[in-house]
Amino acid sequence: MNVELISIGDEIITGHTVDTNSVYIARKLAEIGLNVVYKTAVGDDLKRMEEVFYQAIKRADIVITTGGLGPTDDDITKRVIVKVFKRNLVFQEDILDDIRRRFEVRGIRMPSINQNQALLPQGATYLANRTCSAVGILIAEEGKIFVALPGVPREAKTIVDEELIPFLQGRVKQSHICVIKLRTTGIIESALAEKIAPNLKVPDTVRFAYLPSYSGVDLRIIASAPNKETGDSDAESVATRLRELVGEYIFGENDDTLESVIGKLLSERGQSLTVAESCTAGLLAGQITSVPGSSAYFERGVVTYSNLSKVELLGVPEKIIEEHGAVSRETAEAMVLGLREKYKSDYGVSITGIAGPDGGTDEKPVGTVFIAVSSADGVKSKRLSLSRDREINRRRSVYAAMELLRRTILEND
Amino acid sequence: MNVELISIGDEIITGHTVDTNSVYIARKLAEIGLNVVYKTAVGDDLKRMEEVFYQAIKRADIVITTGGLGPTDDDITKRVIVKVFKRNLVFQEDILDDIRRRFEVRGIRMPSINQNQALLPQGATYLANRTCSAVGILIAEEGKIFVALPGVPREAKTIVDEELIPFLQGRVKQSHICVIKLRTTGIIESALAEKIAPNLKVPDTVRFAYLPSYSGVDLRIIASAPNKETGDSDAESVATRLRELVGEYIFGENDDTLESVIGKLLSERGQSLTVAESCTAGLLAGQITSVPGSSAYFERGVVTYSNLSKVELLGVPEKIIEEHGAVSRETAEAMVLGLREKYKSDYGVSITGIAGPDGGTDEKPVGTVFIAVSSADGVKSKRLSLSRDREINRRRSVYAAMELLRRTILEND
Repeated sequence: MNVELISIGDEIITGHTVDTNSVYIARKLAEIGLNVVYKTAVGDDLKRMEEVFYQAIKRADIVITTGGLGPTDDDITKRVIVKVFKRNLVFQEDILDDIRRRFEVRGIRMPSINQNQALLPQGATYLANRTCSAVGILIAEEGKIFVALPGVPREAKTIVDEELIPFLQGRVKQSHICVIKLRTTGIIESALAEKIAPNLKVPDTVRFAYLPSYSGVDLRIIASAPNKETGDSDAESVATRLRELVGEYIFGENDDTLESVIGKLLSERGQSLTVAESCTAGLLAGQITSVPGSSAYFERGVVTYSNLSKVELLGVPEKIIEEHGAVSRETAEAMVLGLREKYKSDYGVSITGIAGPDGGTDEKPVGTVFIAVSSADGVKSKRLSLSRDREINRRRSVYAAMELLRRTILEND
Repeated sequence: MNVELISIGDEIITGHTVDTNSVYIARKLAEIGLNVVYKTAVGDDLKRMEEVFYQAIKRADIVITTGGLGPTDDDITKRVIVKVFKRNLVFQEDILDDIRRRFEVRGIRMPSINQNQALLPQGATYLANRTCSAVGILIAEEGKIFVALPGVPREAKTIVDEELIPFLQGRVKQSHICVIKLRTTGIIESALAEKIAPNLKVPDTVRFAYLPSYSGVDLRIIASAPNKETGDSDAESVATRLRELVGEYIFGENDDTLESVIGKLLSERGQSLTVAESCTAGLLAGQITSVPGSSAYFERGVVTYSNLSKVELLGVPEKIIEEHGAVSRETAEAMVLGLREKYKSDYGVSITGIAGPDGGTDEKPVGTVFIAVSSADGVKSKRLSLSRDREINRRRSVYAAMELLRRTILEND
């Protein structure tokens, strides 16, 4: 069964909001074997919404909209549903009670405007929303399923997880989809393709793609088959070949992230980590600790943005900064040595660089970053030449530092 | 003139990649008075792409696609263009030279697969890409403009900024669009609407919307008018009324962020800031320093994830942690007092909390966070009751702490 997702809202088509709902929903649907084939976004415009709804119902089996179900005036999805499905809105007392109860639990008085949310198209099923006041709407008619969800991501997510997916799972005839994602870092897409393309045969039932992102390039394999065994084995045989061809660049698979892989390596070894950051100013520590349970191996970090803080918090000799500059291999190494000496962790990581937009020189242009990793086995450092963009430089430095750490842990074994 | 944006790629409709290109492009187009009215996403599927391209050319004046122009096999946009526009691909030597030169500059050998990128549909214009090898393609025909851009965000962005926008600016008849965004924090959407809806009259030429996000709720005003003066004045009169109604929640406008507003306040006053973070572990420091030039007021921060690090780096008395717990108002206040005493900044901010998913108790469930701000005028602290989601709790804590800091700076004046 094919699915079309429709995202509604001026904020989405004008680019004032990033549409993360359709991303989340597509992934959850894929897990139960449902394919999204179109995604459409349309503004808060009755006529265009109507047209888009009609087209979707025509070309897809399941249509899921997000947005336009909130309590405020610009939320008009229900009006379009009434028009397209030729139904009246009916006031449902039980929904109002439910919404009232939720506000009570949170200790907030329910604004009277929220009463609108208890109006539902006749014959529609209501999808409860544990976390907030907006409810989802489901209409099943002539073999098609139409679902309208609120646009606030955490509300949409809750309804999808707790109501929609269980409902659809009972309804759809599943063809099994097996997805494997091999995550690489430290190599560009075309260089990967040069190693892979001439040496990989992909069967017709499998789709293979390169997906570049900040952290590196993901290699994604999607196999579809009538049963789980065939799907798994088709995808796995492509994955095995890829591991042979470019395994040295693969840091993890599927939901692995560099930070979760590092967390696993450190936990298994009972080892600890501290970090010292200049240009990334906390982003590395923040990324490392995005893993639940990271307190088992991450104990502290320092953000040494100024020269003085590098001297005071890390014991970097002033002379090194004067001679080589705060952004230098020597300073990065002194930072990480001081860090481990002062705070006694098994691994230390440091980052210092010129994130931009200002501060570059001919010798060290914007995007010049030094990273260093220290352990009982010594210090390793690396110079990066990144971009002119401040945020890209900061993010990439974090990933490059994590990759240097990961390789060092493995080499130390 | 109406625009349709088309995002191409299995990774987008399956939800493996967030489509940020269409967000960026829509914003840039709005600035030159071009309206995006539809956004469509479609997988790497020749037939569906063809159908979506045809439909877009029919219903929009300008069609811009992203994705499917890379060097690898799954990139098939050109094949669809050839089919839809009935043109052959022609090899263009000058583009190849250009691509080769770019690889040389970066000191990377050009993989031969990149030669494919020098193939262009006959009669098409090529949009150069300063940063990388993929080029854009532009076809102008029968009053319609069709543009294909690569899918990698930084490549798309460069071509849009340097080639596409200047090209379109010369071509389009502009109706003036004025956008004002008032940014609020610390109040939910429906409570805002209750204050605003009964008291605000919006003229027909103006569209008004509430846009909730992690940092708060944005109030967006879009006025369209035949000339700049009318547009500006229509939008401004709505903004003025909103400032009267809910001004106390507005922290900034348009591109302002809490971190940029704080940066401005501190710079103007010549004051400095240090931070001490437990559960957010560097994310506050990272957010503060996302502002270029933040080194003028931000000097250092500490990530005190463990109890020991709170004692050693901040001088928090062990007794306080034992008696009240690491997540408590007392610890948050001791952290920020120790921070300012040790590091002598004008302002200090601390965060300690239970981000989850584990670690909650009946008294302090997951989502309990304490934030504190210290200055020469004393210490202020606040208890937050957030969600069950680790990442949401960390992000919201950062915004709540920044807002407490902003209000404190203003009150201290």
